[in-house]
Amino acid sequence: MRDFLPEDIRRREYVIGIVKRVYERYGFEPLETPAVENIDTLMGKYGEEGNQLIFKILKRGEHEATGQADLALRYDLTVPLARVIAHHQSDLPRLFKRYQIQPVWRADRPARGRFREFFQCDVDALGSSAPVIEAELCAAVADVLIALGFDDFVIRLNHRQLLTEMLAAAGVPDDLHASALVAIDKLDKIQWAGVSAELLARGVTQAAVDALLSLIEGSLATATLTQGPMAALQFVGDFVSGAEPDPASVENLRAILELTRGTRAEGRVVFSPTLARGLSYYTGAIMEIAVPDLAGSLGGGGRYDNLVGMFLGQSIPACGFSLGLERILVVMGERGMFPASLATTPADVMMAVFDAADLPHALRVAGLLREAGLRVLIYPDADKIGKQIKYADSRAIPYVAILGGDEISAGKVTVKHLAGKTQQTYDQAAAGAAILEELKRRG
Amino acid sequence: MRDFLPEDIRRREYVIGIVKRVYERYGFEPLETPAVENIDTLMGKYGEEGNQLIFKILKRGEHEATGQADLALRYDLTVPLARVIAHHQSDLPRLFKRYQIQPVWRADRPARGRFREFFQCDVDALGSSAPVIEAELCAAVADVLIALGFDDFVIRLNHRQLLTEMLAAAGVPDDLHASALVAIDKLDKIQWAGVSAELLARGVTQAAVDALLSLIEGSLATATLTQGPMAALQFVGDFVSGAEPDPASVENLRAILELTRGTRAEGRVVFSPTLARGLSYYTGAIMEIAVPDLAGSLGGGGRYDNLVGMFLGQSIPACGFSLGLERILVVMGERGMFPASLATTPADVMMAVFDAADLPHALRVAGLLREAGLRVLIYPDADKIGKQIKYADSRAIPYVAILGGDEISAGKVTVKHLAGKTQQTYDQAAAGAAILEELKRRG
Repeated sequence: MRDFLPEDIRRREYVIGIVKRVYERYGFEPLETPAVENIDTLMGKYGEEGNQLIFKILKRGEHEATGQADLALRYDLTVPLARVIAHHQSDLPRLFKRYQIQPVWRADRPARGRFREFFQCDVDALGSSAPVIEAELCAAVADVLIALGFDDFVIRLNHRQLLTEMLAAAGVPDDLHASALVAIDKLDKIQWAGVSAELLARGVTQAAVDALLSLIEGSLATATLTQGPMAALQFVGDFVSGAEPDPASVENLRAILELTRGTRAEGRVVFSPTLARGLSYYTGAIMEIAVPDLAGSLGGGGRYDNLVGMFLGQSIPACGFSLGLERILVVMGERGMFPASLATTPADVMMAVFDAADLPHALRVAGLLREAGLRVLIYPDADKIGKQIKYADSRAIPYVAILGGDEISAGKVTVKHLAGKTQQTYDQAAAGAAILEELKRRG
Repeated sequence: MRDFLPEDIRRREYVIGIVKRVYERYGFEPLETPAVENIDTLMGKYGEEGNQLIFKILKRGEHEATGQADLALRYDLTVPLARVIAHHQSDLPRLFKRYQIQPVWRADRPARGRFREFFQCDVDALGSSAPVIEAELCAAVADVLIALGFDDFVIRLNHRQLLTEMLAAAGVPDDLHASALVAIDKLDKIQWAGVSAELLARGVTQAAVDALLSLIEGSLATATLTQGPMAALQFVGDFVSGAEPDPASVENLRAILELTRGTRAEGRVVFSPTLARGLSYYTGAIMEIAVPDLAGSLGGGGRYDNLVGMFLGQSIPACGFSLGLERILVVMGERGMFPASLATTPADVMMAVFDAADLPHALRVAGLLREAGLRVLIYPDADKIGKQIKYADSRAIPYVAILGGDEISAGKVTVKHLAGKTQQTYDQAAAGAAILEELKRRG
């Protein structure tokens, strides 16, 4: 787990600020849940591996003796959301759109770029199964990424049910579907040669593998050569339905693609027949963000109409998207996408003082500068003025305000600009506005 | 532990936003630490009761079998700060001023107004023992409270060493000091009759109790009748030092009081010779915020020059202040201090749609309104228009934008103001600016 020093926090808050502003414009509201859940709420929701990775908390009181755990640390933001929907149903609107940006904890072995505490950044809409929900999620996520400065992302789109239909049409028997999806999901990493070898090893016949290959290659070729995702979707639709009308999964994806036209996601959404997504709770459309220079995704999501029912006993349609905040921060850092104004300095102005007896004046003048909107650090000790200025320089504080006896008796303050090696004397009451003006001018 | 629904979060973020803005103006920088610390970092730092209240986390892997805990949840923000200072010393400046606003966890029995997860809001300055540090902390805290709208708080000020000197001068033997402080700290709750009975029960002589009473009454009378805290401090100084020069503790408090003049804390700081503060790690000045209608305080702090040394092996002067965020939220709620603009509505405008086929137009127009800065919710389902408008009303969304066939073909949009029962038709491109203008005008 990591400490977050000032620069880390400024970068994270910059990103979170943009995410919140965009999501609020789409009508999503903030929600937060406790770090600690009852252990029964979490166990069994993330598969066997997930159970192992949940941090378990000893029961209060008798814990040292029995080793019994009754609480656990939040593992993701989706299961707590489902619990909240069930628990607060009467306080929540029928259509509930929420965003949630909080840390989660996983007892993974620490490794480079893998942390035991990391932020998730989720957005979900509950209470409607209309495809406009998926389209708005794609639009909102695209809007966030564009606002952060990403210009080369695509949103890959597929459908859980269509995957099943594709496998069936290719001749993969039902009982091999889950296993086959695990192999197909690796296409980006091990290419078709690897996937087909793995499919054969998992018991899929050569004929079914060949059928899947022709489907995937055909869909990719169609998307590239003709009219984009809609044509590729039609190609796959024809494959799975033959002379029959298109199945509901194809109709659903077509509606989502239609609806994203004219939104911020326009031209960003591609139909990806091999996208599978790991989590087993998805029931409909699934989405994932891809960026060219990044293995893995910046985020993903999909429709999960049955999860809330596990807590409520009554199913509520739901669809969501999770952005990988840590990855976004890494990619933005590598690409130099943070604005220069986030550079770490604790203050705009440092007050230096010649004589400790003048400190009351320093505090008073600092108050005037702060009222003008400046961040002001007072050097606390009666060190030599050279040492004080050196400290300001080492902290990249651009201005040093100096109060000596002459300035105090004349109601003035002298302000040095360290990088420019210039200085100017102002009336104390006018200094704040003047420095602020100069700061803006220098950018 | 609590879920935070949208209104809770908006109120908390409103307060945190003001706290951050003010603290940044005083040169404090953000710091965050992980929720989970090594168990050895926390154990033994909060006394025997504290050890019991620390949430302990089972060791990864073999945990079910052995019940062994190696990690624990953050219990406060001060001990993690001391660890950070020791751990990151080479990355941190010699003078480090940080604020930290994060939840902490205590395995207390839940009760009304007492939570197992709650936010602390700390501000600390490390690396200087000059009294300007205490004065700036008082100024910053006063600035925060004034910005939040509090106008009736005082900052009580005392000094750990002066407490010892008062007890010695009154004739309380050294080995009864800690016990006597516990009794004196209760003055607000059980008045002097209760305190004196408790002192006698703890073994303090009647003569010493009488001497303490005359000291406290004399100091209070001086503060009320003549020149305020400086005179009360002089009264206590004379009592403890007799004909000798004032002790360093009195000089220190005098300097702090002098320095707060001309700051936002002016007229707010009172000398409180009975303020003791519970925590044992304080070594110098101690402070606490009092508000008339609240039993207990809104926050407190003090100097603790030895805590960092427990981690670093080398002592670093430190002084800090912790605001009780939960109490501040409660008092502000009771007093109606939150701005009306925090009222919970998920959006400024809801898009209603007559026909699902028109949804692509709704998404496009919603995009235009969002670009103008509005929060826009799209009603996702093809329900009757009356049901859609009723939903907007139930969510307190002030405007409903309606797109019918006529509007679409004319490039227009009709906007209803629900409360005013008025409606107006705009060009789609001009609607956003017009609604924003109206929202501002209606406040």
